[in-house]
Amino acid sequence: MVKSIEWKDNKVIILDQSKLPLEVEYIECTDYQTVADTIKSLKIRGAPAIGIAAAMAVALAAQDIRASTFETFYKKLKPVMETMLSTRPTAVNIRWAMERIDHLLVSNKEQTIDKIKSLLIEEAKTILEEDIEVNKAIGLWGAQFIKDGDTVLTHCNAGALATGGYGTATAPILVAREQGKEIRVIADETRPVLQGARLTAWELKMAGVPVTVITDNAAGALMRRGEIDLCIVGTDRTVRNGDVANKIGTYTVAVLAKENGIPFYVAAPTSSIDLSIPSGDLIPIEERPAEEVTHIRGQQITPDGVNVINMAFDVTPARYVTAIITEKGAFRPKDIKKLAIKGINISDIMIKQ
Amino acid sequence: MVKSIEWKDNKVIILDQSKLPLEVEYIECTDYQTVADTIKSLKIRGAPAIGIAAAMAVALAAQDIRASTFETFYKKLKPVMETMLSTRPTAVNIRWAMERIDHLLVSNKEQTIDKIKSLLIEEAKTILEEDIEVNKAIGLWGAQFIKDGDTVLTHCNAGALATGGYGTATAPILVAREQGKEIRVIADETRPVLQGARLTAWELKMAGVPVTVITDNAAGALMRRGEIDLCIVGTDRTVRNGDVANKIGTYTVAVLAKENGIPFYVAAPTSSIDLSIPSGDLIPIEERPAEEVTHIRGQQITPDGVNVINMAFDVTPARYVTAIITEKGAFRPKDIKKLAIKGINISDIMIKQ
Repeated sequence: MVKSIEWKDNKVIILDQSKLPLEVEYIECTDYQTVADTIKSLKIRGAPAIGIAAAMAVALAAQDIRASTFETFYKKLKPVMETMLSTRPTAVNIRWAMERIDHLLVSNKEQTIDKIKSLLIEEAKTILEEDIEVNKAIGLWGAQFIKDGDTVLTHCNAGALATGGYGTATAPILVAREQGKEIRVIADETRPVLQGARLTAWELKMAGVPVTVITDNAAGALMRRGEIDLCIVGTDRTVRNGDVANKIGTYTVAVLAKENGIPFYVAAPTSSIDLSIPSGDLIPIEERPAEEVTHIRGQQITPDGVNVINMAFDVTPARYVTAIITEKGAFRPKDIKKLAIKGINISDIMIKQ
Repeated sequence: MVKSIEWKDNKVIILDQSKLPLEVEYIECTDYQTVADTIKSLKIRGAPAIGIAAAMAVALAAQDIRASTFETFYKKLKPVMETMLSTRPTAVNIRWAMERIDHLLVSNKEQTIDKIKSLLIEEAKTILEEDIEVNKAIGLWGAQFIKDGDTVLTHCNAGALATGGYGTATAPILVAREQGKEIRVIADETRPVLQGARLTAWELKMAGVPVTVITDNAAGALMRRGEIDLCIVGTDRTVRNGDVANKIGTYTVAVLAKENGIPFYVAAPTSSIDLSIPSGDLIPIEERPAEEVTHIRGQQITPDGVNVINMAFDVTPARYVTAIITEKGAFRPKDIKKLAIKGINISDIMIKQ
């Protein structure tokens, strides 16, 4: 399996996704600034992957700190955590990882500095391993919806590269294949940043999964021709009413799927579910630079100075979503909020095939 | 106004649309093969424009034919017409132009060869001029659906560049502006060949129309946000039941429009209406080279050897189409077939606002 990030010999090894699929290059990070730079420059991307990278960066920085007391150690490590938070200010997973690290530090303040240093390494590795376990569980719950011989359409990249491994949207596909089912994947190229054409196509090819790239425009025609059996996408944020924010174009795929009677699944680790927001229309949508639209791989495609709208995400209303697949089970979007009910029996709300 | 094609000094002058918007270059064609190549390689594209180009190519070829009898002349010209027909198999306009030329030839078989040669040039020029008149009429019938302050979404390029001038989908916009209405256009970039980003954006900018480019993925999100008032697209072929073949992704726009309660108009000169085909599902869909998907402006974006599906067109079923705007009036898709009824009073079936 492709590894987007790894802790090895006291270094953080990061696959440079900005060079994929034409060059496969790994960056050996021996200091946290290098890790921060890879996040800022999108050499590593994907919500779970950058959370893991931030935790590993803190562990890396900790090894070089000279301190005789916890207070000094903590004081020297805090700016590192601030730096990591500033790399992608809206990334929920980095904040989550830094809070987890901070909790670890404060809970272990009585330990020796050397012990804390090794605990930080262990914690970063654990965050990565837990992410893989979560994805495998999503894969198991999701594989029930995939039949032998199915063709799955996916949008953007919610695969191994976006995570510690296995991916979220790709996990059900990989598990279905482990179960002996023959599965074919159609990858939307996913303009503007082409994560589908560049990353999903590459990692599925590496994993031996038959994958076909199409332009985003072709998804509808393929659905009408009966060539797509189901859709699975990832998500950046799923909110209380079951609305889902994901890469721009996801809403279009969902509408086309509904119109053609094709199930539309969202793979969502529970860490990406945000019950504090009641409806998808309240999710802030990041606008990104016009250059992502006007230029492709450095080549200008539009007339000089043309107006551009470049929203990074869109919101798919819950009514288009057949099920949300988490590591705890697959649920109807309207039932997602029930996961927070104390004492709920999850199997009561779970979808079973 | 931008001219995509012109007959000048016994040459066919074609604006090389493959170099737009960064370079404005004209190709001087002195033989029909060069014209055929410009069609095949999409240097000139757009249903009406390639119909005009095919007619001019035949006129060009005719000038070089040495024949003493009509039969010899006709026998030598027939393969030229076959070549032009084979350049773009889905293009009904080329067939229409070739049939018109064929009719002209057969009707004038008693004339001298020199006379026929000059009639062919006149006919090709007339086809171009008639096209502009047709587009202006489409503009008049279409402008009734556009209100002051509207934002119009269009897909691909059905503008001046795709025609002799004025465009089909753009004509209602240009006429509405001539009527004093303020109109804004959103141009889908239209992968794979990016006709929206490259051509529609360029020609509308040249014409002083406010235009904004988006990725094809963003159309749905903009519709959901209420930022699109209506859609107007062109068509390569409209068939008997009102189904419409157009650039890949058009079906997606139509589905999104319907889902969001936005009118979806198709600008279709009657020459693009093909009543011999009962339903859109019977329209042959051209598959184009994988390189259009795997490479953008010479830059490879996908892994080596990845599978690709690249359909040039899709079919939008009649139920998604609010009206088909022709030079004779605007009609409901189901009424298109009535245009062929002898003695029909067109104003009885016309849509009036």
